Parts: sequence; structure tokens; C-alpha cells
Amino acid sequence: MKVGIAGATAYTSLELIKLLLHHPEVEIVYLGTRREGNPPISQIFPSLARQIDQPMAGLEPDDIPKGVKLIFVTLPPTVAMQYVPKYLKAGYRVIDFSADYRIKDADVYEKWYKTPHTDPDGLKRAVYGLPELFRKEIRRTKLVANPGCYPVSVILALAPLLARELIEHRDIIADSKSGVSGRGRDVSEQSMYCERNENVEAYGVGGHRHLPEMEEVLERATGTRTRITFTPHLVPMDRGLLSTTYARLKALNTSEAVTDKLRNFYKDEIFVRVKEPGQPPSTKDVVGTNFCDISAHVVENRVVVISAIDNLLKGASGVAVQNMNVMFGFPERLV
Amino acid sequence: MKVGIAGATAYTSLELIKLLLHHPEVEIVYLGTRREGNPPISQIFPSLARQIDQPMAGLEPDDIPKGVKLIFVTLPPTVAMQYVPKYLKAGYRVIDFSADYRIKDADVYEKWYKTPHTDPDGLKRAVYGLPELFRKEIRRTKLVANPGCYPVSVILALAPLLARELIEHRDIIADSKSGVSGRGRDVSEQSMYCERNENVEAYGVGGHRHLPEMEEVLERATGTRTRITFTPHLVPMDRGLLSTTYARLKALNTSEAVTDKLRNFYKDEIFVRVKEPGQPPSTKDVVGTNFCDISAHVVENRVVVISAIDNLLKGASGVAVQNMNVMFGFPERLV
Amino acid sequence: MKVGIAGATAYTSLELIKLLLHHPEVEIVYLGTRREGNPPISQIFPSLARQIDQPMAGLEPDDIPKGVKLIFVTLPPTVAMQYVPKYLKAGYRVIDFSADYRIKDADVYEKWYKTPHTDPDGLKRAVYGLPELFRKEIRRTKLVANPGCYPVSVILALAPLLARELIEHRDIIADSKSGVSGRGRDVSEQSMYCERNENVEAYGVGGHRHLPEMEEVLERATGTRTRITFTPHLVPMDRGLLSTTYARLKALNTSEAVTDKLRNFYKDEIFVRVKEPGQPPSTKDVVGTNFCDISAHVVENRVVVISAIDNLLKGASGVAVQNMNVMFGFPERLV
Amino acid sequence: MKVGIAGATAYTSLELIKLLLHHPEVEIVYLGTRREGNPPISQIFPSLARQIDQPMAGLEPDDIPKGVKLIFVTLPPTVAMQYVPKYLKAGYRVIDFSADYRIKDADVYEKWYKTPHTDPDGLKRAVYGLPELFRKEIRRTKLVANPGCYPVSVILALAPLLARELIEHRDIIADSKSGVSGRGRDVSEQSMYCERNENVEAYGVGGHRHLPEMEEVLERATGTRTRITFTPHLVPMDRGLLSTTYARLKALNTSEAVTDKLRNFYKDEIFVRVKEPGQPPSTKDVVGTNFCDISAHVVENRVVVISAIDNLLKGASGVAVQNMNVMFGFPERLV
Repeated sequence: MKVGIAGATAYTSLELIKLLLHHPEVEIVYLGTRREGNPPISQIFPSLARQIDQPMAGLEPDDIPKGVKLIFVTLPPTVAMQYVPKYLKAGYRVIDFSADYRIKDADVYEKWYKTPHTDPDGLKRAVYGLPELFRKEIRRTKLVANPGCYPVSVILALAPLLARELIEHRDIIADSKSGVSGRGRDVSEQSMYCERNENVEAYGVGGHRHLPEMEEVLERATGTRTRITFTPHLVPMDRGLLSTTYARLKALNTSEAVTDKLRNFYKDEIFVRVKEPGQPPSTKDVVGTNFCDISAHVVENRVVVISAIDNLLKGASGVAVQNMNVMFGFPERLV
Repeated sequence: MKVGIAGATAYTSLELIKLLLHHPEVEIVYLGTRREGNPPISQIFPSLARQIDQPMAGLEPDDIPKGVKLIFVTLPPTVAMQYVPKYLKAGYRVIDFSADYRIKDADVYEKWYKTPHTDPDGLKRAVYGLPELFRKEIRRTKLVANPGCYPVSVILALAPLLARELIEHRDIIADSKSGVSGRGRDVSEQSMYCERNENVEAYGVGGHRHLPEMEEVLERATGTRTRITFTPHLVPMDRGLLSTTYARLKALNTSEAVTDKLRNFYKDEIFVRVKEPGQPPSTKDVVGTNFCDISAHVVENRVVVISAIDNLLKGASGVAVQNMNVMFGFPERLV
Repeated sequence: MKVGIAGATAYTSLELIKLLLHHPEVEIVYLGTRREGNPPISQIFPSLARQIDQPMAGLEPDDIPKGVKLIFVTLPPTVAMQYVPKYLKAGYRVIDFSADYRIKDADVYEKWYKTPHTDPDGLKRAVYGLPELFRKEIRRTKLVANPGCYPVSVILALAPLLARELIEHRDIIADSKSGVSGRGRDVSEQSMYCERNENVEAYGVGGHRHLPEMEEVLERATGTRTRITFTPHLVPMDRGLLSTTYARLKALNTSEAVTDKLRNFYKDEIFVRVKEPGQPPSTKDVVGTNFCDISAHVVENRVVVISAIDNLLKGASGVAVQNMNVMFGFPERLV
Repeated sequence: MKVGIAGATAYTSLELIKLLLHHPEVEIVYLGTRREGNPPISQIFPSLARQIDQPMAGLEPDDIPKGVKLIFVTLPPTVAMQYVPKYLKAGYRVIDFSADYRIKDADVYEKWYKTPHTDPDGLKRAVYGLPELFRKEIRRTKLVANPGCYPVSVILALAPLLARELIEHRDIIADSKSGVSGRGRDVSEQSMYCERNENVEAYGVGGHRHLPEMEEVLERATGTRTRITFTPHLVPMDRGLLSTTYARLKALNTSEAVTDKLRNFYKDEIFVRVKEPGQPPSTKDVVGTNFCDISAHVVENRVVVISAIDNLLKGASGVAVQNMNVMFGFPERLV
């Protein structure tokens, strides 16, 4: 199956290309970029030399690649929604990495992304790309809104407890620690080695764009409207994301019993590994994989659920390939 | 003034020695170690060569150094309390880095440290070494219980809000991120470079020994008995400690108003810097210093207070020197 | 094809297992360890959970696994040679990761490894496992001596220039920079995070065990006896190895001409990428792959050849799988 | 003594300010910057809050600070020489951090810095600021050319051996490994965390601007014209610089004998520590100090001399303060 990538030079695209190169069912035939001169992708990512050396193509709004069945759009938010409708109109399916199709409520979108949504039709059709919660819908859609990295880790930690009504919907806290690649490829003082190395800091306290995404998707998935206090932090490593979530239990419970509920909820999921209460997950164990590792620990009247993912894989390109597998009926484990 | 260090080869001792070498009022005349053969300290810490090359002395329980006024004890918990009474009996003042004199309730101590407390007299006399809260008592004591690194960061963040009755005493969460030196100098698989690098993980979820210390000291300092859910994490850096604390506000409030309360509480403190709400602290800005940087952010009915310290300085050796300055009437800023 | 691993808990074994799990032609049926209690491999390496959960088997000298065609031996030097002869006698082929079969001269081996070689027959039959130089012999052998990481990087950099007689055989310098995983999984003060992080240092100056290996193999491969001054360094990263080699040119030459010679020498090699003179290789571009990236730069009468590999892949487990592919006629690129 | 800094927001300036704040003999009265709006320095470097909060001043070419005795110029090369002559004319002494006054030969300067030198008078008067080699001249000069970080490490390693005629002047190799702060504060893709972390690479092979500086200064200091092949590398750490130099011995020699020569050469130097042959220096032992640690290892007919410094201190701001101490007769150890 022929696929294309619109926005080939993002960090997430590098990971996506590596996954697709090893995928037995697909072939990359289009790499679109806004960089000038159509250089080969291996000039941007020397690690790809000998593996994929084709020149990239243009990415003007009217450039529509030919002969593909699926386009991955890795463009920034507010830009992606200028491209996605054209691809859909051309009959292609789309997996969009931006935030443009994740939040159903266009007012909420406008509030957080400071621009009106220009593709309300797409927004209506889009399915949130977390197969563990929306597999059935993903199978049938033309447009997947690939999830944000923080939301993947927080939603997978909390959804089972909300769905099983084990925790209060208020007073939920999500304290997340992300590797620096979570900032993407922007060249700014904040992304420089000497600013990030040997340093931990919070950012966007109480006001990160991934917060409305978490809250809205958790409500869609579990029927419960939550209020989450979300604090993302940058820690000095390339990749990996750990979310430590805190919620009040509705009734007394044990770590073992909550762990059983998690196990049961994810019993058919190949990419979620529920760990023993005494063994909280490490980002190191999931980096380079599409796994989400989760553990639960009851501390008096509260449960601490910790989840770990690779922000570039299960939090971006890995879940995108998983979504593709679901959409096209390929074995889901082919990530 | 002549001082000694019992336990000279700990990581915290290296920092302590560096500080004391630059301190205009003191001279190190005793370095006690349990390592064999009395090597010079610069053989253990080559960075000290040319700065202090004296051989170390023994540290048998009956070795009492001569002619010092103050001994810093950097021995592990349960070991320290075998040495401290002898030093006190010899007429020396003591600043003890272990946890042995931090928790006043001997039953709580025994529960967490798995051994009965053998020096109840010392325990009674000891003062908790956080000058911002106990300066008056530190001035008069012979024995300072130097605080743990996590407690310093959490107590300095929460004490003003509890003392001013701004927050609920329940439902407090402290999510801490520490550099690896927080583990001390134990040689174990968990401390190896390839285990810690490019990795974030929680440990001791709900059961870290610093938790009873935080709760007891906060009660002594503010009169309020709290319940804290505390989760420490290791992040891949040498030093630095960031604590993100979450508490429910008793009444509606703004980030600016809470920040003002913090500023007011610490207005005479030279080592606490209260930052603007939009500028959460970075560990990088405090590493190598004795500062604690703090910021407050109100998110709906909750306040997020973030504090950053250097775990080896304000969280150990820096606050020890500050305590010494208070005990002996040296200018407090000489750290 | 069924394969086994003797020494399953080494860092290199983790990488080997990951590669074999993705290899379409092989199945791992034996994981031998000297650890007690036969735990599942995923207990040692949690990242392998859900991918391979079988319990490990014992590794007494007389434990011979059944039904395999090939055994990878990842035991330490001097231990490996106690196991290899038994596996060969049982009719299995062996790829040995230790240094025990790399150096043909048993006296040199004894000098550097402080013990007499106990398997001279094996030593005679063993083929050095660098397919770029010894592919034909690897195809026919029962026993491959998988190369050391430093030698792979230095030999691939220098062999073409020696073979084409472009450089003097004396006055060659190899200055190598390795990630910390190159030290293996030993738990020692030297491997601790706080010793290695934010630190660069040389070790084994002039006396590293990989030196005789480089010199002997280069002579076998090119007919030229060399004298190399080799200095390995540890740099603060998990994996990756960069060797900067310096040699005197026999005649005036240009960077472009030397680069052409390298290109020509490796023109049929899929895992060697020769780069432009102005683009020295980065370890980041080869980590996670079996590639060796090489560049050449002429500076007056000297050539600087720089090579980069992943020490755990092209320097250990990747080249081992490549060797397996050559031995059994699988496509060589299946690494 | 009142001093000023022209170029206050460079990384080296942060270190310089910290050193000057602790120096008992000086007071910073001028901080000049080209940034708009004269913000306080603690807004650029939050770590300086409470330590120095004064607003910065302008830095137009005609802004001459008043009442200072010494100005540190931390502007980039080719810019510095527009400011230095004015400060000298105003009667101030200058320590210039740029390369503009290091190379005496104006043609060599123009070749490497791509612009003609515009201050030949200054060039004539300038003294190279390495007190170990030029202390007498530094005492008498108005203008110190503060050295480059790579040259400091290479020159201190090689000067004794060249001065004592132990090594050949040809076939010298300097292979240097620097922390990322060596790149300064430029915001570029090459300085981003995700490019530098977990990565080692060479740059400027055979053509780094510090090469002519090393060669010219070694000739001035030892009378010997050398040819050095110099390869700088970036390693993933903030600060620290290790240079591994290789030279051919003129006669057979031992590590111990060469070490003795080094010891003797530096016997009165407080900031050079010569280590035992078996103990090559670590950058970790010198970071945060003004020390240069050196070791020598003879390997057959060649000597490997390894030196370690903190590139921001002994390689920049530390040696600048040492130079100031020499110029004004302060105790040299006050760094």
C-alpha cells in the first residue's frame, strides 16, 4: 500500500519513516516538505541514508500526491487543517498529527489555538486515534486525529478508573515529565542543550494545550466530565514521557485490586502492559517501543497511577502506525 | 574556628568541604572515615587536590577528635546516633546529616528506620535545621538535625500557605524530581549510568522515609497536621531537586495574591527567592547555590507551588553551613 | 531456525534478543544464565515483557541446549572458552562475543588476558566476524569470533587505506570515544551515574585489550603489520562509539581522492556508509542501526579517518546477526 | 577596584560575574549589553537574582563606562576590536575574551577570521593571557588577550615538552573533547538539545580557528615552530574540556620521567596539577575550578599527554580573573 507524509522533516516524521520502512505492508511514495529545493530526506536525516534516499516533493497547498491511499500529516496545528480537507477530497485517508482534529468543540479549539477552526466538516468526521478506546470508530473513519503525547499517557492511566467509577471526577492531578523531543524541532533558546541539560522545570502550569484534549476525550470515552490539574515538565533526556496521576478513590481499595481492574480493562490490548504495584514503570523500558506501561498504587484514600510511553512512538508515530493498521486491517502488532 | 567531619567520603561531604574551604571563619582539622589506611581526602576526591591534602583519621566509635568546636556528622541513619552522643558529651556541637534526630516521635522513627532509637536524650535536644522556620532554636542548640533534601523543598513550599491558613491540610500532593546524587554514593545496579541515563522513574511510591519527616516538621512549624501524598522520582542529572506541590485553596484566590503571601513570609530570608507566577523555577538556576526558588500558580480551586533547590547544598551541605552560621553568629550569607 | 543464547542477561544480549525477535528466519528457544532460579528474561529486562516471556535455563558447563542450530555465547572472556568447545562438539555453530577466539596468537592472548588459552583447536578454526573483510571465511566456519567494539570502528576506518597502501604502517593513532554501555554491566564505582555523567576521561592509555586485536586483524586483512597508539575514552552517553584515527599519507593526496578509495573499497557493503569529507559522522546517526559511517579528511601530510558505530549493534549484537546471516545464507541486510 | 563587563549576556559572562562577586578586591559597576531596554542582568540569568540585580547599560560603540579601572570584553571576534581601542584610549585596562588580539600575525588573523585587523596598535601591545607562560608580560600590559579554551588545554599540555626539547615539533596531534557550552550562546540547530544529547561528533576537522592560535603561541613560548593536527569534538555535557595530545619522543623515555619534567616545569603554578601516569585526568575533577589537570603516558616512542580544564573557567573566565590578579597584584589564587 502506497502512503505519503506531508511534513517530512519533523522529528516525529523521522520516527514514522523508520517504522514504515520496516512495515511489510506499506511503501512510502511521497515525502512533502516546505523546505526549498527538494533535497533528499537523507540530507535532513543522515541516519536514513541507504534506507530511503528519494528526493522530497513540494508541499504547496495545491500539491496533491498521486496514487497513495493514506497520507500522514505531520504539519503544525492551524496549518494542518489547510491541507487535510484537500487530501480527503482527493479520496485519501488521513492520519493527522496536529491538534486540529482532536477537540470536537470548535469554541474550545479557538480558545486554545487562537484561531477559528476552518474545517468543521473534517472536525465532525474525525476520530480520536487511541485504538485502546476508539478502535471500532477508527476502523471506519477516513480521518484519524492522532493524539497528543501527554494525553496518551494521561488518558490511558485514568480511563479505566473513570470507566469503572473507582475515582472521583474532581481533584485529579496529572504531573508529567517529558523528554526534550516533546518540544518538537523548534530552534529557540529554550531548546538549546545548555538550557535543558542538567535541568528540570515545569512549563505552561495550568495552561497547556493538551489539557482540554485530555478532559474532552476522557469524557467521550468514559462518560465522566473531569477536572484535571495538569503540569508538564521537561527533563533532560531525548525521549520518554512519564505521567504520575493522582485521584481520590470513591471507596477504600487496595493496590492489588486496582491493578486487577487495570489488567482487566486492558486484557486484550497488546500495547498496554500493567505492572505490579511495587514496580512503577520506567521510561527506559518503553523507549523505542509502542508500549504504554502502567502501574497503580493506593496510598490511603488516593490512587497514584503512573504511565510511561515513548513520546515519539506511542505518543506520536507509533500510535499513528497502529491507527493505520486498524484502519486497513493489518495486524495491529506491526508497529 | 576548628571543625571536623565524621564520614568524610560521602558525596555531601565533598560539597561540605568545598564550602568550608571558602568560609572565612572556619578551618577543617578533622576528617574521619571508616575507609582503611587513612588515605588523604584528595585520593577519594581528586578534585580536592591542592586544596586540602591532609590524611583522613579513623572513625572508630571511640575516636574523638581533639580541639574542634563543631562536628558535622555525615554518617548513614542508624549509624550516626552511635557517634553523636559521644561528641556531645565531649562538649562539641554537632550538625548531623542523617535522619536520626529529625523525627521527634521515636515510634515513628522505629517504624520507618526499622530499629529502635538509642539516643532519646539527643532526640529531645535536637533542633530541626531549617533556619527559615527554626532560626531562634538553632541559635541555642548543641545539636542540629540537618534536614533531608526532599523535606527542605516541600516544607519551604508549603509552610507559608499552611501557616497563613490558605490551604486545606488534606489532599496535599508533593511530586518531586531529584537528580541522581540524591541516592548518595551507594554502588548498586540502580545507580549505574546505563540504568539512570535517559530514564525517569518514580520510586518508593507512598512510602519514602522523608514523608514522616515532612509531615511532622510542617506540624511543628505551622500547628497544622497534614496528610501528604509524596512521590519522589529520579531524573537523569547529577544534582538539583524540583518539587511540584498541589493543595486545595480554602477560598478563591489569585496567583498574584498567593505569591504576595509567599513574598511576605520570606521577606527577611536571603536564601529564598519567590518568583513571578509565570516563571516557575528551574533547577539550573539554583544548582551550585544555597537558594530555594519558589513560585505559586493558582489553577481554579487549587494552588500549585513549585520549589527548586540544589539537593547537595540547600538540601544538605549548604543548609548545614547556614545552620553553623546561625549557631555561631557568623553572617548567615557566608555559604 | 532455532537459536540459543548462553549468557542472556548481558547488555549485548538485550540488543541481540530484540534483533532476533524481529528476524523473520529465527526463533529463540534457549536463554541460558548463571543467575539463580531461572527467572523469565523479562524480569531482568522489563522492556522485553510481552515480547519474550519464557523462563531462562541453567548454564552449568554441562547444560547443552537441545535442538538449536546456532548458539550465541555472550559470556565474559576466559569463561566463554569453557563453553564453546562443548557446543561445537554437540554439532552446533557458535558466534562467540568474548575475546577468547579473536586473537590467533595464544601467547598474545595469555599476555593480555592473564590466563593460558584452553581451547587451541577452537582458536585455530575460529574466523574473525567482520563480514566486510572475512565474508568468505565466515560462510564456511562453525565458529565466529564476534569482534570487539573498538576494533570494529578502527579496523573499518583503517583497513582500506592499509590495503591500498595509502598510509604508513607506523605512527597510526586511534582516539576513540565510547558511550558507557561499552563497559558492560559491571556494577562498580566507575560505572555509577554520578561518576560518568558530565565527565570525559581516558582509560587504559596505551594498554587496552582491544589493541592487540586491532593490530593482529589488520595484519591478517591487509598484510601490513601496524603499530597503533590507541586511547579509549568514556563519554557521557549510553551508546555510540566514534573513533578518530590519524595516519601519515605515503604521498600527497586530497580528501576527495581518499574518500573515493574508501567508497570503492566498500562499494558492495550495505552497512558501511562513506560520507563527504566536510561531513564527519555523528554517533547519533548510527545508534540503533548496524551502520558504520566513515569520513576521510586530509590535513597536509596526514589523513584523519573518522568512523561511527553503535557499540552495542555494529560493535556487538548487530554484527553478530549479520554474521549469522552470512553463515546461514540469509539476506545480509536482515539486521 | 571597580570593573566593567562589555558583553554581559554571554555564557562566559555569567561565570565571570559569579567569580567577581566572590572576589574580595573588586566591584562590578558596569554591565554593557547590546540587548534592548537595559533589563537587569538577573532577568537574563535568573541564577544571579539577589546577587546582582543592577540594570545593564547600553553598549553603543561610544558608550564609555565611567570610573572603572578594568574592562572585561566578552564580545565576539571582529566586534571586540571595535571597542577595545576606545577603552584603552579612555585609560582603562582591558582583558579581551575574543580572538582579536591573540594572533600577532595580522595576515594569519585575516585568513582565519575573514576580515582585516583594524587595530594593529592594540595587536602589538596585547599580551597572551596564559600566566603560566607569560606572567611577567601580563603584569606590565594594558591589554590581555584572554586565551581560547582549546589552546589553553593544548598549550599547557605541550609547552613543557617542547621547551625541554623532549618531543618532535612535527607529527603532533591534539584530539579535543569539549562540552557544548564551548559553542557559546548561539541559537542554532547545531546547539539544540536533541542534536547534541547522546551524540559525539568531530567538527572543523583540520580547520578550526584555534589551531593557528595554538601554533603561534607555542612558538612564542618555546621557540619551536610546531605543526599540529587538531580535531575538536563535541561531547554531550555542559562544560569540561579534555585534550588528548600525541607527540613523538626525541629519545626513549618513561612515563615517570616525563611526568617529573612536567612537575618540575609547573612546580610554582598553583593552578596546574600534574597527575600520576596511571591516573589520567577527568573533566569532572576540574569543572567549577580554575585547575588544569595533566598526565603523561609514554607508549613506545610516543608520549600521550592528557589535559583537562573547565572550558568556561580555566578556558575563559577563570583564567581572565587570574590574569586580572596578575595585572593588579592581587593574590593569584583568588579565582
